[in-house]
Amino acid sequence: MAESMQGLKRTHRCAELSAANVGETVTIMGWVQKNRNKGGLVFTDVRDRSGIIQVVCEEGKTDAALIEKAASLRSEYVVAIVGEVAKRSGAVNEKIATGEIEVLPTELRILSESMTPPFQVEENSKTKEEVRLKYRYLDLRRPDLQKNFIMKSQVMTLTRQFFADEGFLEVETPMLGKTTPEGARDYLVPSRVHPGCFYGLPQSPQLYKQLLMCSGFDRYIQIARCFRDEDLRADRQPEFTQIDMELSFVDVDDVIDVNERYLAKLFKEVLDVDVQLPIQRMTWQEAMDRFGSDKPDLRFGMELTDVTDVVKGCGFGVFTGAIENNGSVRGINAKGQGSMPRKKIDKLTAFVKDYGAKGLAYIAIQEDGTVKSSFAKFMSEEEMDALIKAMDGQPGDLLLFAADKNKVVWDSLGALRVELAKQLDLLDKNEYRFVWITEFPQFEWSDEQGRYLAMHHPFTMPMEEDLPLLDKGELGKIRAKAYDIVLNGNEIGGGSVRIHQNDIQEKMFEALGFTKEQAHSQFGFLLEAFKYGVPPHAGLAYGLDRLVMLMAKQDSIRDVIAFPKIKDASCLMTEAPTPADEKQLEELGLSVVSE
Amino acid sequence: MAESMQGLKRTHRCAELSAANVGETVTIMGWVQKNRNKGGLVFTDVRDRSGIIQVVCEEGKTDAALIEKAASLRSEYVVAIVGEVAKRSGAVNEKIATGEIEVLPTELRILSESMTPPFQVEENSKTKEEVRLKYRYLDLRRPDLQKNFIMKSQVMTLTRQFFADEGFLEVETPMLGKTTPEGARDYLVPSRVHPGCFYGLPQSPQLYKQLLMCSGFDRYIQIARCFRDEDLRADRQPEFTQIDMELSFVDVDDVIDVNERYLAKLFKEVLDVDVQLPIQRMTWQEAMDRFGSDKPDLRFGMELTDVTDVVKGCGFGVFTGAIENNGSVRGINAKGQGSMPRKKIDKLTAFVKDYGAKGLAYIAIQEDGTVKSSFAKFMSEEEMDALIKAMDGQPGDLLLFAADKNKVVWDSLGALRVELAKQLDLLDKNEYRFVWITEFPQFEWSDEQGRYLAMHHPFTMPMEEDLPLLDKGELGKIRAKAYDIVLNGNEIGGGSVRIHQNDIQEKMFEALGFTKEQAHSQFGFLLEAFKYGVPPHAGLAYGLDRLVMLMAKQDSIRDVIAFPKIKDASCLMTEAPTPADEKQLEELGLSVVSE
Repeated sequence: MAESMQGLKRTHRCAELSAANVGETVTIMGWVQKNRNKGGLVFTDVRDRSGIIQVVCEEGKTDAALIEKAASLRSEYVVAIVGEVAKRSGAVNEKIATGEIEVLPTELRILSESMTPPFQVEENSKTKEEVRLKYRYLDLRRPDLQKNFIMKSQVMTLTRQFFADEGFLEVETPMLGKTTPEGARDYLVPSRVHPGCFYGLPQSPQLYKQLLMCSGFDRYIQIARCFRDEDLRADRQPEFTQIDMELSFVDVDDVIDVNERYLAKLFKEVLDVDVQLPIQRMTWQEAMDRFGSDKPDLRFGMELTDVTDVVKGCGFGVFTGAIENNGSVRGINAKGQGSMPRKKIDKLTAFVKDYGAKGLAYIAIQEDGTVKSSFAKFMSEEEMDALIKAMDGQPGDLLLFAADKNKVVWDSLGALRVELAKQLDLLDKNEYRFVWITEFPQFEWSDEQGRYLAMHHPFTMPMEEDLPLLDKGELGKIRAKAYDIVLNGNEIGGGSVRIHQNDIQEKMFEALGFTKEQAHSQFGFLLEAFKYGVPPHAGLAYGLDRLVMLMAKQDSIRDVIAFPKIKDASCLMTEAPTPADEKQLEELGLSVVSE
Repeated sequence: MAESMQGLKRTHRCAELSAANVGETVTIMGWVQKNRNKGGLVFTDVRDRSGIIQVVCEEGKTDAALIEKAASLRSEYVVAIVGEVAKRSGAVNEKIATGEIEVLPTELRILSESMTPPFQVEENSKTKEEVRLKYRYLDLRRPDLQKNFIMKSQVMTLTRQFFADEGFLEVETPMLGKTTPEGARDYLVPSRVHPGCFYGLPQSPQLYKQLLMCSGFDRYIQIARCFRDEDLRADRQPEFTQIDMELSFVDVDDVIDVNERYLAKLFKEVLDVDVQLPIQRMTWQEAMDRFGSDKPDLRFGMELTDVTDVVKGCGFGVFTGAIENNGSVRGINAKGQGSMPRKKIDKLTAFVKDYGAKGLAYIAIQEDGTVKSSFAKFMSEEEMDALIKAMDGQPGDLLLFAADKNKVVWDSLGALRVELAKQLDLLDKNEYRFVWITEFPQFEWSDEQGRYLAMHHPFTMPMEEDLPLLDKGELGKIRAKAYDIVLNGNEIGGGSVRIHQNDIQEKMFEALGFTKEQAHSQFGFLLEAFKYGVPPHAGLAYGLDRLVMLMAKQDSIRDVIAFPKIKDASCLMTEAPTPADEKQLEELGLSVVSE
């Protein structure tokens, strides 16, 4: 039977107690972590959010009925204990913060009993994730998981305080908005009052925050829930959270400045990590050329080398063929990996195929200077020497090459570089390397759709000096005032300066192949707003979940989301989504189509 | 043509300038509020979030081309101005903060032109709300509206900081949750991966926050978006925001304590209003007896008097009939209103009929001591005297009576009391009177459903001393550990201690007429969680929008929501909701039923 806590008041959380409290009478409340009887003694570890404290009953010292009750406790019972804090009579436990002390109880109440839980509440649980997610309320008792949420809460509080101090206003934008068929898939919400009509849940507050700038709010911040009905990958959720901001009367440098100061403050206060300001900036072109990625991990080297010119006239058809197709040949030098077994190289070859590469050419330079290579037979000795020299190949090095269209070469070698770093254990989770990637291409070509798409979104401002290219139709060359902030190879945020000039916006829609009607039906209210005086404005949004995941050194965003969905977008705990009631569907004017 | 701001950097917001800046060269950016030519002078008022500054061009002093450009400016153009701050040469304008100074421009750029707006951007706009909501981005430029959002942002920041300092963790709970057919109507979100299945948008994070307590999070706070698909009244929106919290190992007093300190801090910092602590507490029974309302406005008197015993045996059948039906007769004394015209009293009678009353009986005591009364003819002189005495009726007073079932009497006289206060102008918007209402009834009888319903929700804990009544089935007498915080006659928040004992929870479901299966299908995961050790816990939620509305002295929550919906739950600006694409519906396995 559950007892009431009436008449008791908790005085401390468990791990708030220390040697300084010795002699005090305290009241603690929490869960039984473990309970053991040992020669007339009952040791009970009581756990709450703060940590663990040991409670000890001893024959002769403790009331006999209380000992009996203590002995009956089982894991995850909820108890209230009144007792005196004492120095431990036994050995000090250095593993826990309260290891020097224990509580000698004078009163024990069982506030709630527990059945045997389906898995033990412990750090680094080995229990399968499906089981843990079904019993998420038990999983969330694990101290290592709670630590993530304590950090996430701290990040949110600091974020809001920082931006409030910088003159940003928090404004709530609607969740029940207008659905647009373009872009990622919206979650729809059927309207009951207007049967057959639907709201869309926001993929981001993009249009609303631009409207707020039109309204003169000047600086806007919101930690906003966003939704995307996409097929889920390991690190995606149907709902996720953005730290979303927009600023008026600013250019790229202003956005970067305030955000650098934010990141420095955040990492200092939460992790005691010093972020060197200014954060390094790199153009998109440089990032691709050097790292094969627009989110380069700068914690290690192994940069890409463009050897197109070196191999231009060589005898290896794979190289020359790629070059003739307007592609390139690039390589990375895996220092000291010259003796990598052939099997492992084959695995790397299979790995890059996922990124579109047809294969991986290699030169393994042995310690004695001889080379093993997949393509030596097609090359003259001079050609090989020139290539090794261009790659700065030394005895013991492994040189890996990809030859294809630029995009394929970058994607494969960029991914290969990170894969090698993982295999070679070059990634230090305690190191935080930031970089701004700037001057993104305005457009990217879609083979599938046979047209240019906006790389960021249609409201992104081109760089002023590239505006003439818009009139000339040289879309592929236009650089945008767009920027991403990258941390250890992860894009943690991104944004752009927006177009605030009607004439440029119109040209942009034209370049993207929107008819006037299409532009109007999707963005009509924004275009309308732009007729009445728009300030120059720019914004940025961080993916909060990913940011916290990296700060907490976790590998999955599910470890920083309290109640996450699994890959099929369902919740194992609540079993949502569930079939609707007939009456509900009728009210909405909908029927379910049977297969 | 829009000019670029490149090369310029704003140095001040408009109203950040003062006499202290005289002689400085500054760069301001904002909207043209108005522009007028007067004898070789061009006066331009420039507006931003902070306020207005006057810019003056003068022939001879200002460059001629600049004067010409300035003269071309029209309302709502966006401009950047570089110039020197000077003391006003003309009269000081005491209406604006920057009234002593003006800016003498040396550079003027037109960053964006504006068409003539559909209405002028001005305080206390007389424009119809539909027009303002269609062009909400223009409406939001009004300084009186912006002020509300600046306050709302401040309230949110202070709230989070206060509760973070008190050890509350901000945890995000899902928006895509499990739909439950009970209670208010959920908004549904169809699942694409599971055709025919639906998520429900949360009406509140109630179940999740209780699960977080089960998980040992100890103290939770979230400013959470909530959804209810109800027919909208003037002060309701389909989506609204709660300041939502839950605490473990606490009882009523602990929740009240931390929230009193919160309210005191909030009102002091935002409004410089001192809230006297502790805030007055009143039981539900007392509130109903004295004010006919569980959200009494304490800024004025006119309390209810129960005269049932006085009129028990009188000759007026309306009174005695009500008493025989287990009802009551109560009155209020509208002091000094004895000469209210009969027509006005008739209007009050019509008013109370909306609250279920069949009529209003009155005694108007004239200055000479004679009475006019709707029912004097049915009463003896002694009966009238006794009644007037019981009501403390003095010459010049108007006594108003209702006789019916208690609920009808309370509802009508409670509403009448507030209506009279409005008519008599007794409501001071600068006075803030808080009161906690406690000991709510656990159940309320539903004539419609012929059973008891939970007044708060099924997880509310009865008062310990009333638990035996649960076993006895005397449900109507059970008081709950539920509390509301009321401000000036508005419920701004409410909550309860929750049941954490399985056996009591089971009895509660039984009392509410839930079968085991119903309870399990709706709340299964919570009931399951409760098997593994639940701490005693309690919570509270504020309606953020209403709280800010009262603090900002507004009459509608639409004035504190950036992009509100109208009564039919549509958005006049975006035109949401809109018909869905056939392809979208197909993916969701849904079809629209034609009428």
